[in-house]
Amino acid sequence: MSNELNMDFIEKLQGLIENEQSAEVLEMLDGLHPTDIAELMDRLSMDEAKYLYLQLDGEMASDVLLEIPENIRRRFLRVLPPEVIAHQFVEHMDSDDAADIMGELEEDVIEAVLLEIEDKEQAGDIADLLEYDDDTAGGLMAKELVKVNENWNVQTCLKEISSQAEEIDEIYYVYVVDDDNILKGVLSLSKLIQKSTHAKVQDLINEDIQSVKTETSQEEVAQIMEKYDLVVLPVVDQIGRLKGRITIDDVVDVIREETGKDYQMVSGITGDVESTDNVWRLTRVRIPWLLIGTMGGIMGARVLGANSHTLDQIPAMAFFIPLIAATAGNVGVQSSSIVVQTLASGSRKFDSLGKKLLKELGVGFITAVFFASVIFAYNYFFSDNFRLTLAVSCTLFIVIIFASLFGTLIPLLLNKLKIDPALATGPFITTMNDILGLMLYMFVAQLFFQLI
Amino acid sequence: MSNELNMDFIEKLQGLIENEQSAEVLEMLDGLHPTDIAELMDRLSMDEAKYLYLQLDGEMASDVLLEIPENIRRRFLRVLPPEVIAHQFVEHMDSDDAADIMGELEEDVIEAVLLEIEDKEQAGDIADLLEYDDDTAGGLMAKELVKVNENWNVQTCLKEISSQAEEIDEIYYVYVVDDDNILKGVLSLSKLIQKSTHAKVQDLINEDIQSVKTETSQEEVAQIMEKYDLVVLPVVDQIGRLKGRITIDDVVDVIREETGKDYQMVSGITGDVESTDNVWRLTRVRIPWLLIGTMGGIMGARVLGANSHTLDQIPAMAFFIPLIAATAGNVGVQSSSIVVQTLASGSRKFDSLGKKLLKELGVGFITAVFFASVIFAYNYFFSDNFRLTLAVSCTLFIVIIFASLFGTLIPLLLNKLKIDPALATGPFITTMNDILGLMLYMFVAQLFFQLI
Repeated sequence: MSNELNMDFIEKLQGLIENEQSAEVLEMLDGLHPTDIAELMDRLSMDEAKYLYLQLDGEMASDVLLEIPENIRRRFLRVLPPEVIAHQFVEHMDSDDAADIMGELEEDVIEAVLLEIEDKEQAGDIADLLEYDDDTAGGLMAKELVKVNENWNVQTCLKEISSQAEEIDEIYYVYVVDDDNILKGVLSLSKLIQKSTHAKVQDLINEDIQSVKTETSQEEVAQIMEKYDLVVLPVVDQIGRLKGRITIDDVVDVIREETGKDYQMVSGITGDVESTDNVWRLTRVRIPWLLIGTMGGIMGARVLGANSHTLDQIPAMAFFIPLIAATAGNVGVQSSSIVVQTLASGSRKFDSLGKKLLKELGVGFITAVFFASVIFAYNYFFSDNFRLTLAVSCTLFIVIIFASLFGTLIPLLLNKLKIDPALATGPFITTMNDILGLMLYMFVAQLFFQLI
Repeated sequence: MSNELNMDFIEKLQGLIENEQSAEVLEMLDGLHPTDIAELMDRLSMDEAKYLYLQLDGEMASDVLLEIPENIRRRFLRVLPPEVIAHQFVEHMDSDDAADIMGELEEDVIEAVLLEIEDKEQAGDIADLLEYDDDTAGGLMAKELVKVNENWNVQTCLKEISSQAEEIDEIYYVYVVDDDNILKGVLSLSKLIQKSTHAKVQDLINEDIQSVKTETSQEEVAQIMEKYDLVVLPVVDQIGRLKGRITIDDVVDVIREETGKDYQMVSGITGDVESTDNVWRLTRVRIPWLLIGTMGGIMGARVLGANSHTLDQIPAMAFFIPLIAATAGNVGVQSSSIVVQTLASGSRKFDSLGKKLLKELGVGFITAVFFASVIFAYNYFFSDNFRLTLAVSCTLFIVIIFASLFGTLIPLLLNKLKIDPALATGPFITTMNDILGLMLYMFVAQLFFQLI
């Protein structure tokens, strides 16, 4: 269990590895979960990790293989011949895991490995799964499941379940199909063992079940499983034939991935990083959005440069540039991220576009009145230039309303165009609204200076 | 299934409700999931929803009650007498759901409801669960589970499972305990039905299982279930006695909640909102962070005001204020959100503080050289003031390094102080770095103007 993996443990293990005490190494690993072993390997040197890995038996070695980082796994598999990949690893795996790993290999290696797999049914399952896109239900599902025919009785079922279940780790449901493999419903294992052995499956079946098609997107799969609190979800083809099942642990990864992506977008990072990654990787994910910000900054400088006569008239105008730019940015990020979160939740009770904009106008208006008043009050007491006071408050008022409308409209527009709306959060909307804010500030100020 | 809930369906339903055709209403709802019915009610008027809800039978009514928004449920339950709450709703629920709902009631109502529950064991379970904090394993777990004694044989087990399973919807695992109720391991139901009825439980038990304590935090529960791909996790007390079990669907909600909170922080929103919420609520969650931004803006204005002599010397300096402020903000948000994401992932292979800062210094340095050069090149060609060109590039260089260090340090500091580190992302770090950036800009410019 994970709290045992402390420094003492690792040092002791390193000592054993150095002396090549294979039996003692295996004894120390006894009872550890594959995830823990993978994590352990990550904390050893490359050579130590290799030695440790070679001591593991087939089953454990393939479980650990699934848990190590993709780039290391790819490098490791690349040097192995197809027959080793097939017999040592793939044959010990569930079809969905096997397909995921094989998807990382070259086209010709995949074919060679498939031909090497002795169980032709397993090879066929994997080949089927490789056909589906990674981000669809077909790409997420496993072929292993327990199914019974609706015409059987309880006794036949129990016998069949026993034999099918041997190859499957966990059974959550028994699926019921007709003679054409069309999904009819589920049986609860606990109900089954309570019934007389002559009862017919047809009379015990629960037909109220959710299912998805193989081409359903992984986002939709996640939404359905979350909404209905499902632990496992059957996947059918166009005409309803049972093709596989998706378990919630795979969907949890999808949810993490999706929310992680949105989080990265809004914080201006382009890729999956942790602070433990190396400096180069940490830098690379930050440059693109900063570049957009810098271009925005240069455009901002041009806007101000083009209006230098206005700035010359009242130099104190410059003092409020950061306030206006920051407020525009903050309001924009808020509006856009609320839209993105609502879209991501898959909520179907959506207001019409008109209603949404009207509401955002309402929010913008209240916020604008509030902050324009705050700044007016501040400047009224602390600034001696009444025209500037008016110009700043007025600009802030207009900027807040515009920024909230843009922040709402742009992600909706992207969504309509089938582009990830999260792109419109964070630095993008901030930069856009910064420039807009500066333009409005210059325009409003000029207006006031000419009028008053 | 959810795609049936279109406008036609709703209009037809509304017609039937208006004519009080109760039987036809129930027929339309037949086969719908409680979640769908709750969603449907949300799209009806208050009176229509009430009428529809009153037609549902006890089981369905309590399932739907669990799915409607908390504020509506609270209002609904407040007007009901304790005996109705107990018999109509709580008695149909699993202990964890019952405890969640009862936790929303007043102290004296809770007591009255508990006394009304006829099944004293259920009442006891709920009372036990109400003792735990909401955000711990104890608060997440349900008491319903199937457990067998390690000394039993398979036949006794199957009989016992049948009788225990009657009250439980789904069985994923059978837990094995000793005479003192200490958790020993699990049994797989499918393994059980393959074995001779005289085999002893002790010989079939799988002892390699994960468990958590009742006081384990919900974040840690989520991390463990995610890491080990678990569907259900047993909960034990200090001395290892089996207290309950947590299923993954409850943990998915925790994950959504946690990631949602971090997302809101970085986008400057203080609370759970969707764009379908009302204008007032949408405004309220935005004001606090904007207020901080505005204060930052005012402080920025004061910094610039105090340095107006520098601005007067070279008015063109004002043009680059937005660039410097925006870059400082963007860099800070990036750094802080990488730290927050790493902390949230529960990664244990953490660099030391020194190494982390050194690395951030490296990232900051590369980024700073890059952007300072970009701006230097731009200004070299487009500006005729070389001192300004130097001052802007130099400021940008220093600001980027400072902003990345602050962005890294502050969330780590908050985490040490047991404050949510996500607080340091978004508007907070942006505002802080904005002001810092302006101060540095003024300082560096003055230095250059005096030296060159």
